[in-house]
Amino acid sequence: MTASSGPFTWKARVYWEDTDGGGIVYYANYLKFLERARTEWLRSFGFSQDQLAREQGFVFTVVNLTVDYKRPAKLDDELHITCVAHTCRSASIRFAQRVYRGPIVMDDPAAENLLVEAQVRVGCVDCKDMRPRRMPDFLLNVLSSKELS
Amino acid sequence: MTASSGPFTWKARVYWEDTDGGGIVYYANYLKFLERARTEWLRSFGFSQDQLAREQGFVFTVVNLTVDYKRPAKLDDELHITCVAHTCRSASIRFAQRVYRGPIVMDDPAAENLLVEAQVRVGCVDCKDMRPRRMPDFLLNVLSSKELS
Amino acid sequence: MTASSGPFTWKARVYWEDTDGGGIVYYANYLKFLERARTEWLRSFGFSQDQLAREQGFVFTVVNLTVDYKRPAKLDDELHITCVAHTCRSASIRFAQRVYRGPIVMDDPAAENLLVEAQVRVGCVDCKDMRPRRMPDFLLNVLSSKELS
Amino acid sequence: MTASSGPFTWKARVYWEDTDGGGIVYYANYLKFLERARTEWLRSFGFSQDQLAREQGFVFTVVNLTVDYKRPAKLDDELHITCVAHTCRSASIRFAQRVYRGPIVMDDPAAENLLVEAQVRVGCVDCKDMRPRRMPDFLLNVLSSKELS
Repeated sequence: MTASSGPFTWKARVYWEDTDGGGIVYYANYLKFLERARTEWLRSFGFSQDQLAREQGFVFTVVNLTVDYKRPAKLDDELHITCVAHTCRSASIRFAQRVYRGPIVMDDPAAENLLVEAQVRVGCVDCKDMRPRRMPDFLLNVLSSKELS
Repeated sequence: MTASSGPFTWKARVYWEDTDGGGIVYYANYLKFLERARTEWLRSFGFSQDQLAREQGFVFTVVNLTVDYKRPAKLDDELHITCVAHTCRSASIRFAQRVYRGPIVMDDPAAENLLVEAQVRVGCVDCKDMRPRRMPDFLLNVLSSKELS
Repeated sequence: MTASSGPFTWKARVYWEDTDGGGIVYYANYLKFLERARTEWLRSFGFSQDQLAREQGFVFTVVNLTVDYKRPAKLDDELHITCVAHTCRSASIRFAQRVYRGPIVMDDPAAENLLVEAQVRVGCVDCKDMRPRRMPDFLLNVLSSKELS
Repeated sequence: MTASSGPFTWKARVYWEDTDGGGIVYYANYLKFLERARTEWLRSFGFSQDQLAREQGFVFTVVNLTVDYKRPAKLDDELHITCVAHTCRSASIRFAQRVYRGPIVMDDPAAENLLVEAQVRVGCVDCKDMRPRRMPDFLLNVLSSKELS
C-alpha cells in the first residue's frame, strides 16, 4: 500500500455511513480514517493491536490532536491517508497524518487534493488501569528504526 | 419520561452525527436510538448496565432483530422511542419498540408520525466468555413484574 | 473480490471504531458492513450511488431488514460479507447477506465462522421528495440479468 | 440547562454506541458530544441548523480543532459539555469547549472531573457550493451580543 519513496499510505472508500446531511463526510469520521491508517501502519511492522492488548496488556490511546479541515470529502471518494511517526518516545508516539482524495502526487500541504491535515499524539496505557506505561523494547526497537526526528 | 398510561418512552434529538448524505437519519443509527431507550428502560428499574457488568459479570447482547423503516427522520427532529418487554425468559428479553417524530398520541402502527417499528431480542451473556447465562433472580423478579405475556 | 463460483463478497477489517465496551463489534455497526458490501455489489455492475443520485436523481433506502447475530466479531477480525440479490422489482431489491470471519469455505448457515445473517429490502426513492420510484431501465436490465428468483 | 453564572452547558449520557473495545469512549465520539453542545447553544438563541440550511441556505462546518484528552469517559457516565464562543467574525466562530464527568463545580482546567478540552473553529458556508460566506446580520447581531473578546 506504500509507494517506495513516499510516506505510509492507507486507502479507504467513503460510504453513506461516513457522510452527514450536509452531503459531505462528518467531521468526526475523519478521525476514524486517521486511526485505520495508524492501525495499518502498526500492522505493517507485524503488530496487531488486539494481540498487543491480549498478550502484552496495553493499548494506545489518543492524548491530543489538531485537525485542519481544508476541503470536504464526498460519497464514493477514494481517500488516501498518510501516516508518519515524527517522534517516538518510550510511552508515546507523535504522528503527522494527511487525508487526500485520490492518489498523492507529492505529500504536499498545497496539493489540490489534500483534504485534511492532522497531528495526533498517542500514548501507551495499561489495559488494567489506563495509566501511562513504557512500550516493550521489541516494539520501541522496531518503531525507533523508522523514527524521523 | 413515561406517560402514566402509555409505554416506556425515551426522547432523543437528531443531530448531524445521525444523518447521512441523503439528508435523513442513516439506517444503522436508529439502532442506537433503540438501544438508548432499552438502556433507560432498564435504568427505570434501577439497573445500570455498567454496574451489572462490573458487579454481576454479565452484559446484554442483541440476538436478532427486525426493523421496518416507514418514514425518515431528519435533522433536528425530536424522536420519541418506546420500549415494551413482550416476553422475558431467564436468559433473554424480547422487546417491541417504535420511533415516533414528536409526541405520541396513541401507540398506533398507523400513526402519521410513526417512523420506525422494531422487534429486538436481547440475550444475557457472561462477560468472560460471551456465552448465554441466566439473569440473576433479583433482575428476573423485577422484570417479570412488568412482563406482558 | 468474488470467487468465481460463490456469491459476491466484500472484505472489511474490524477497527476500534467498530467495537464497543463489551469488546465486540457494536450491533448497529454490522449494518455499515452490510451496506458497504451492497454498495460494492452495485459498483461491480459499474454504478456509483453518488453518480446515480447526481445524474439520475434517486437513492436507495432500506425499507426493512432482519438480522440474526450468531457469533460476535472482534477487533482486527477480517470480515467477508456476502451479498446476493434474491429478487429485484422495478422499485426495490431484496438482498440476502452474510458476514463471515475470514474466508468462506461454503456459503453455509451452519458454518463455524458465520457471524451474522441478514435479509435487507432496499427501495428506490426520488432524491427530491423521498417517494418510491421506478429504477431506470438500464439499471433494471443489468440487475435482472443477475436475478435469482 | 445553563447555570446563571457559568458557561452554556449541555448534558449527554454515554451509551454502548459511544464506547470502544478498550472500555472507554472512542476518541472520535467526543466530537459528537461537542457538536451536540454547539447545536444546543445555537438553539438557545432560537436558531435551528435545519431551518438555517433550508431558509437561509447555509450550514456551519468545522474549519479546525484541537482536542486534549485528559481522562477517559466510561459507559453510563453523565457528561456535562460546555460551549463558549470566544470570538465571532462575519463568517466564522471560535469555540472553547470542555467535557466534564458529572456536574461542574468551577469551569477549571485543573478540575478532577474535566475529561476533554477542545478549541473548535466553525465557518459559515453556502449549502450550494460549500464556499465560505458571511452570516446574515440577524444572526451576527444575536451572537455578537454574547461575544467574549
